[in-house]
Amino acid sequence: MKILILHGPNLNLLGVRETDKYGIQTLDDINKDLKRLALQLKVEIEIYQSNSESFLVEKIQSATNNFDGILINPAAYTHTSIALRDAVVAVKKPCVEVHLSNIYAREEFRHNSYLAPVCIGQISGFEHRSYILGLEALVNYLKNK
Amino acid sequence: MKILILHGPNLNLLGVRETDKYGIQTLDDINKDLKRLALQLKVEIEIYQSNSESFLVEKIQSATNNFDGILINPAAYTHTSIALRDAVVAVKKPCVEVHLSNIYAREEFRHNSYLAPVCIGQISGFEHRSYILGLEALVNYLKNK
Amino acid sequence: MKILILHGPNLNLLGVRETDKYGIQTLDDINKDLKRLALQLKVEIEIYQSNSESFLVEKIQSATNNFDGILINPAAYTHTSIALRDAVVAVKKPCVEVHLSNIYAREEFRHNSYLAPVCIGQISGFEHRSYILGLEALVNYLKNK
Amino acid sequence: MKILILHGPNLNLLGVRETDKYGIQTLDDINKDLKRLALQLKVEIEIYQSNSESFLVEKIQSATNNFDGILINPAAYTHTSIALRDAVVAVKKPCVEVHLSNIYAREEFRHNSYLAPVCIGQISGFEHRSYILGLEALVNYLKNK
Amino acid sequence: MKILILHGPNLNLLGVRETDKYGIQTLDDINKDLKRLALQLKVEIEIYQSNSESFLVEKIQSATNNFDGILINPAAYTHTSIALRDAVVAVKKPCVEVHLSNIYAREEFRHNSYLAPVCIGQISGFEHRSYILGLEALVNYLKNK
Amino acid sequence: MKILILHGPNLNLLGVRETDKYGIQTLDDINKDLKRLALQLKVEIEIYQSNSESFLVEKIQSATNNFDGILINPAAYTHTSIALRDAVVAVKKPCVEVHLSNIYAREEFRHNSYLAPVCIGQISGFEHRSYILGLEALVNYLKNK
Amino acid sequence: MKILILHGPNLNLLGVRETDKYGIQTLDDINKDLKRLALQLKVEIEIYQSNSESFLVEKIQSATNNFDGILINPAAYTHTSIALRDAVVAVKKPCVEVHLSNIYAREEFRHNSYLAPVCIGQISGFEHRSYILGLEALVNYLKNK
Amino acid sequence: MKILILHGPNLNLLGVRETDKYGIQTLDDINKDLKRLALQLKVEIEIYQSNSESFLVEKIQSATNNFDGILINPAAYTHTSIALRDAVVAVKKPCVEVHLSNIYAREEFRHNSYLAPVCIGQISGFEHRSYILGLEALVNYLKNK
Amino acid sequence: MKILILHGPNLNLLGVRETDKYGIQTLDDINKDLKRLALQLKVEIEIYQSNSESFLVEKIQSATNNFDGILINPAAYTHTSIALRDAVVAVKKPCVEVHLSNIYAREEFRHNSYLAPVCIGQISGFEHRSYILGLEALVNYLKNK
Amino acid sequence: MKILILHGPNLNLLGVRETDKYGIQTLDDINKDLKRLALQLKVEIEIYQSNSESFLVEKIQSATNNFDGILINPAAYTHTSIALRDAVVAVKKPCVEVHLSNIYAREEFRHNSYLAPVCIGQISGFEHRSYILGLEALVNYLKNK
Amino acid sequence: MKILILHGPNLNLLGVRETDKYGIQTLDDINKDLKRLALQLKVEIEIYQSNSESFLVEKIQSATNNFDGILINPAAYTHTSIALRDAVVAVKKPCVEVHLSNIYAREEFRHNSYLAPVCIGQISGFEHRSYILGLEALVNYLKNK
Amino acid sequence: MKILILHGPNLNLLGVRETDKYGIQTLDDINKDLKRLALQLKVEIEIYQSNSESFLVEKIQSATNNFDGILINPAAYTHTSIALRDAVVAVKKPCVEVHLSNIYAREEFRHNSYLAPVCIGQISGFEHRSYILGLEALVNYLKNK
Repeated sequence: MKILILHGPNLNLLGVRETDKYGIQTLDDINKDLKRLALQLKVEIEIYQSNSESFLVEKIQSATNNFDGILINPAAYTHTSIALRDAVVAVKKPCVEVHLSNIYAREEFRHNSYLAPVCIGQISGFEHRSYILGLEALVNYLKNK
Repeated sequence: MKILILHGPNLNLLGVRETDKYGIQTLDDINKDLKRLALQLKVEIEIYQSNSESFLVEKIQSATNNFDGILINPAAYTHTSIALRDAVVAVKKPCVEVHLSNIYAREEFRHNSYLAPVCIGQISGFEHRSYILGLEALVNYLKNK
Repeated sequence: MKILILHGPNLNLLGVRETDKYGIQTLDDINKDLKRLALQLKVEIEIYQSNSESFLVEKIQSATNNFDGILINPAAYTHTSIALRDAVVAVKKPCVEVHLSNIYAREEFRHNSYLAPVCIGQISGFEHRSYILGLEALVNYLKNK
Repeated sequence: MKILILHGPNLNLLGVRETDKYGIQTLDDINKDLKRLALQLKVEIEIYQSNSESFLVEKIQSATNNFDGILINPAAYTHTSIALRDAVVAVKKPCVEVHLSNIYAREEFRHNSYLAPVCIGQISGFEHRSYILGLEALVNYLKNK
Repeated sequence: MKILILHGPNLNLLGVRETDKYGIQTLDDINKDLKRLALQLKVEIEIYQSNSESFLVEKIQSATNNFDGILINPAAYTHTSIALRDAVVAVKKPCVEVHLSNIYAREEFRHNSYLAPVCIGQISGFEHRSYILGLEALVNYLKNK
Repeated sequence: MKILILHGPNLNLLGVRETDKYGIQTLDDINKDLKRLALQLKVEIEIYQSNSESFLVEKIQSATNNFDGILINPAAYTHTSIALRDAVVAVKKPCVEVHLSNIYAREEFRHNSYLAPVCIGQISGFEHRSYILGLEALVNYLKNK
Repeated sequence: MKILILHGPNLNLLGVRETDKYGIQTLDDINKDLKRLALQLKVEIEIYQSNSESFLVEKIQSATNNFDGILINPAAYTHTSIALRDAVVAVKKPCVEVHLSNIYAREEFRHNSYLAPVCIGQISGFEHRSYILGLEALVNYLKNK
Repeated sequence: MKILILHGPNLNLLGVRETDKYGIQTLDDINKDLKRLALQLKVEIEIYQSNSESFLVEKIQSATNNFDGILINPAAYTHTSIALRDAVVAVKKPCVEVHLSNIYAREEFRHNSYLAPVCIGQISGFEHRSYILGLEALVNYLKNK
Repeated sequence: MKILILHGPNLNLLGVRETDKYGIQTLDDINKDLKRLALQLKVEIEIYQSNSESFLVEKIQSATNNFDGILINPAAYTHTSIALRDAVVAVKKPCVEVHLSNIYAREEFRHNSYLAPVCIGQISGFEHRSYILGLEALVNYLKNK
Repeated sequence: MKILILHGPNLNLLGVRETDKYGIQTLDDINKDLKRLALQLKVEIEIYQSNSESFLVEKIQSATNNFDGILINPAAYTHTSIALRDAVVAVKKPCVEVHLSNIYAREEFRHNSYLAPVCIGQISGFEHRSYILGLEALVNYLKNK
Repeated sequence: MKILILHGPNLNLLGVRETDKYGIQTLDDINKDLKRLALQLKVEIEIYQSNSESFLVEKIQSATNNFDGILINPAAYTHTSIALRDAVVAVKKPCVEVHLSNIYAREEFRHNSYLAPVCIGQISGFEHRSYILGLEALVNYLKNK
Repeated sequence: MKILILHGPNLNLLGVRETDKYGIQTLDDINKDLKRLALQLKVEIEIYQSNSESFLVEKIQSATNNFDGILINPAAYTHTSIALRDAVVAVKKPCVEVHLSNIYAREEFRHNSYLAPVCIGQISGFEHRSYILGLEALVNYLKNK
């Protein structure tokens, strides 16, 4: 079982920017946590961060043949990218959407997600733990299909 | 550490009704899973289901003195109850909102949650696993405060 | 064949309050008419009035094993209760929604019904006759299924 | 007592088109049922189908002197014709609106009726039975005025 | 100079229906007044009433070669007919829109006119006098062009 | 019979500004036309222009004892002043609203009038002729009351 | 003269929760103030708090025979309960709506009150003093009827 | 293979009216082009223009037995007629919607089509060529079914 | 302690206009009541009425040095004046908003107040008593600060 | 070259009120800066502050003959005054709109400007520097026309 | 004559993903068809697919000097990219927008196109044939300019 | 002091495209002006144009360590990019938004800026001068911090 983990725009700044909103963990910290959990769950993971909508689209497209599921924090693209949604629908792989901050406690325009309706589910608000919970959820889903 | 777990209206029918939307687990199954996890996490839990908005409000109120956190699936009241929101704000205890189905893949009126903005976070779409993930998230949050 | 007949909030005041809007019949008068019609149609009926959303939810839940269909005047809850809708969907029994007054000739907020889309149909505006027509319609539907 | 019964646009195709939505009865079947009921209720009826908004308007206008009440299924014109509404208001005759399908379970644009607010009431969703219930309701209303 | 005067749907009932809203003058009374004024203004007029959107459209189309201007009370079609608007634009003749009642003191849906933006102007609320004022305005406009 | 004629903000610039929208007549030209017509109709008029909402409000207030009717071009205040509306309602004198340009052919925000619903009627689009028509309409209304 | 005083959901927590928003007075403190004022105004009062929409509905219903007026702080139900509104309309007793906090300085969804349009008036923002002012206003209203 | 080609309201004026928006071709020119193409594609066509919504509805209804597909330019009815939509759905024949002008470059109210969602596709903006492209598209669709 | 009391536009007509909506008291009557209460409460008051938005703005500005609080009935400016709001915010003095009529039982456009969110609170619907209650509330607030 | 500089309502309080939003400079400080810059740019300026919409309108009207351009901070009237917009359009002089605070970082109702669409441009958020930038921009524009 | 043909995001997956929505043709198949047609129409074409908004923008920019027209299927960017629209406007080359699926029969958010208003026209719903029709339309347009 | 200056999508075409909207200056001309001003203000600048949202995001990210402030014309991304907004918030550097054209005089969808609320201020409408003013404003802001 192989999982693609995607970090969207500006997540490379994690732990640096707005620590009150997103926590003090850096992206590296999160990735280490994810790798540890992957080992434990006996799944392979590939982690990829990009600030580019099209690179994320293409990485999702690559899931058609290479991955069993997708864990994604689309960050700002959550609310503006239909291309990401179309990619997820196209590759027909189970996808879990995660957010560090509670998007429902923020600006109105962050309450809508183009991606959520085509995902299995969404996890929002648990800082770096959102990823951990998301990976658990996705692997569990894949094992029980 | 003591956690209050609340099931909202119609969840007593779980595993019976609309199994395609909510999965085949009964509420008892879910409660057993939660108890097992509680043991494992070394936290006490109290589980309560009600179809009544006011009973849920009062149970939340009871958290002021008796509980450290709240895990709630407000079901239909998610979208219509400001009283539940006010109760959560009043008791000042960390709260996690969970949903069995992916509410963003359903009717428009299920996309808004009065509760979510005053919770730590929201988990939606993983059937009975949403509860498991939610309890993990809440306990983890409490331990790291 | 057994039918559950539900009267929503404030309908216990019928014939007393606002007779220009709802007619001069009391709830007892209506219930007597319904019983007479039930006899005639050779169906059993159980009649229940409650001002409580949760009691109505639970009564609907009871239909799973005990009733073949539901006739309901949800009154104010028509426009605010998703819990009632979820209950009707959950029990998978044919449901008919009735209103004494013509809700489309009243305030804007009474034009939306959360229940109607999950019912067979809706009858609105014929005062106490709405119930009679509704019971006929429901029984007829059940007989022709 | 004389009742005008109006069938709006495309209802001449009934029983042929979309039988899953509107039932398998043809317009002729419905008209026969209505005639039978009229006999039973001892009222005269005149039945008229038209695909033309203006013909329906003019038929309603003719009610001023010739009819005591109107039973109408305005079909598509329900949602687009203010002319029909104005005609009903102008002739000052009690009017009942009926729909074969449950318009509240269909497209958003079918949820609004220009006619309903100026009718006694509306019956929606009981296939050909909607007419039967509507005629009963109208005659009953006229008898009790 | 030749003017086409058009009366829209249900205006044939004038003086009969809702005299509190539209005044007690019949359409014949209005037409007589208009003819008297036409004589006085030394213009020819042709008067036409129809309940049919398409007949009105075609009458407007006839203005291309036969009329110098159009005076129209589109009644209910004011708010629903884009076809009338397109016809007025197509024939490129000055058009004046009149209403017996003050449409801005009535239902919200009567506040929008598809026709008004392509007319010279609109006169609303002066009962049968709206026509008289409208004809004066139109003739004056044509004389000063 | 005494009529108050009010010109709203910026109308003192008439004939100078935007002659394509409002015509080439100055306010003086219009006032002369109105005086001529007043003589002819045997009514007294008082004409008042102000750029001030409160001065216009107070002039309307003065109508309680001194005038039989009001002719007003509220210009920009049409769309923003509830104070003018309240004044008109308070003095209980018939009021006619006029506009030089066709407000329905201009920006969206000019389509709403706070004043129109409390006036007898509205005349819009006939340049300086709107006033002439409005005075005729008002005097005619007062004579036929 | 007998007044029914109703406290809505979560008001039992008063003085405990969010003292910055609602003041430091407990519900008991407020009730004592109200009793003192009642004595002074020579009116009888009955005070009732409930978190249940239906209990509040039923208490209002009881006013038909037992009370001359109602003072209510509907709290969260202000914005979501049509059942409370219907009850107030049904019992035909003067009702005054009060709020501790200024609801217009809070979330958008707290700006709408289903109850206010059927009350005499609304008092909002004066902490526990809102009740005192409300009782004065109600008694004064009843004495001057 | 037999195709029904429908021209909606005001299209009889083509080549006369607004040539900057719709091109200089008359309806006859377009019909000749269509006949030439039909010959070439070896399909039979019947062409029909009407300004009447109901005549267009009835012509569509006639497709049930006589035609294999429908090519329609509904003109103004595109945005206002649900009756046309219902007719197309009822006859269950593939339908292609065409527009001479680019409706998305025009007034806001022309951006919505009631018909488009029940058609195979829509072609908009290529003047008389829209018909040619539409006929090609429809015939191609029918041949490949 | 010195209080500024402001009456907005058209309130000079009080007791004359629309006595069903605003009561039969004149502004003088209200002012006398207010003076009597001021004496009793041992506070100084200055009362000012204006129909002018800018005079009201400037009077509020004068509060910076001369007054401890403001009691205002902004009347029509409640719903249209941001300048009043800015003035209140600028002078940083506690402000209470009052309305004679229940603004929530009137036209939709009267439900929004630009001023309310920057006031301590709002009192609406108690005719001249709204002022009395408002002054009590304001003085009480100032005394308890 | 002569420039009219206008300060809208409440700007006379500058440097006193809300210094966190508008900076600590008083209006006099700003005016001195503007005069210094005018000297430097070799343009004449006239500065005028008013809390009155109509005085501002009239000052703008005076630009027809006396000024080459207008620099305006319409403050609260930005969002509510169509009269100011009409005045600017009428005088046909280039106008620059400035704001001390960033209006897009404040309340939703401050995001719309009636004036901006008829100005050359808008400068918002640089405290007293907005005026300096605005004057530079306006003079530069006039010099390059 | 040289035409630029652009395929937007995810179209590289064509024939693989969602064949029920987009048909079974791969992008290569479509490109072959387009090349064949280009030969036939004696025009040169360049075909380019990208998942990147900016690459598409830049390719459109290249049309300034190298192409006579643009045929584009913007896919997901249709609904979210103003940059593409700006590029099309900037290069001033005729553009035709095509869609494989009928976007008006899909989610609400796919009904708006930022590009369509600045294109000649739009073709939607004919699977791979949309491209063929689009190329014909564009070439025809260019030949007749 | 070092400033990052960013030009968004399609600005590389400046001076070529739509000179009536954006002026005749090329991007090079603007850059030269900016460099000249930078020298004068004794600040270092780096200028960067990109059509790519992600490249702009990354350039903004680089400001964390390398720049003191950002001057940006986000062009089309102003209205669609939350990623740019998040980047600006993340780097915590003062940002000024500029636009060549007056975006408030253009299409409705250009009136909203995702970026403006997180910038110091916005300057819109002064063609190439917007940049000059923006740089002045930003440097001035930084010097006075």
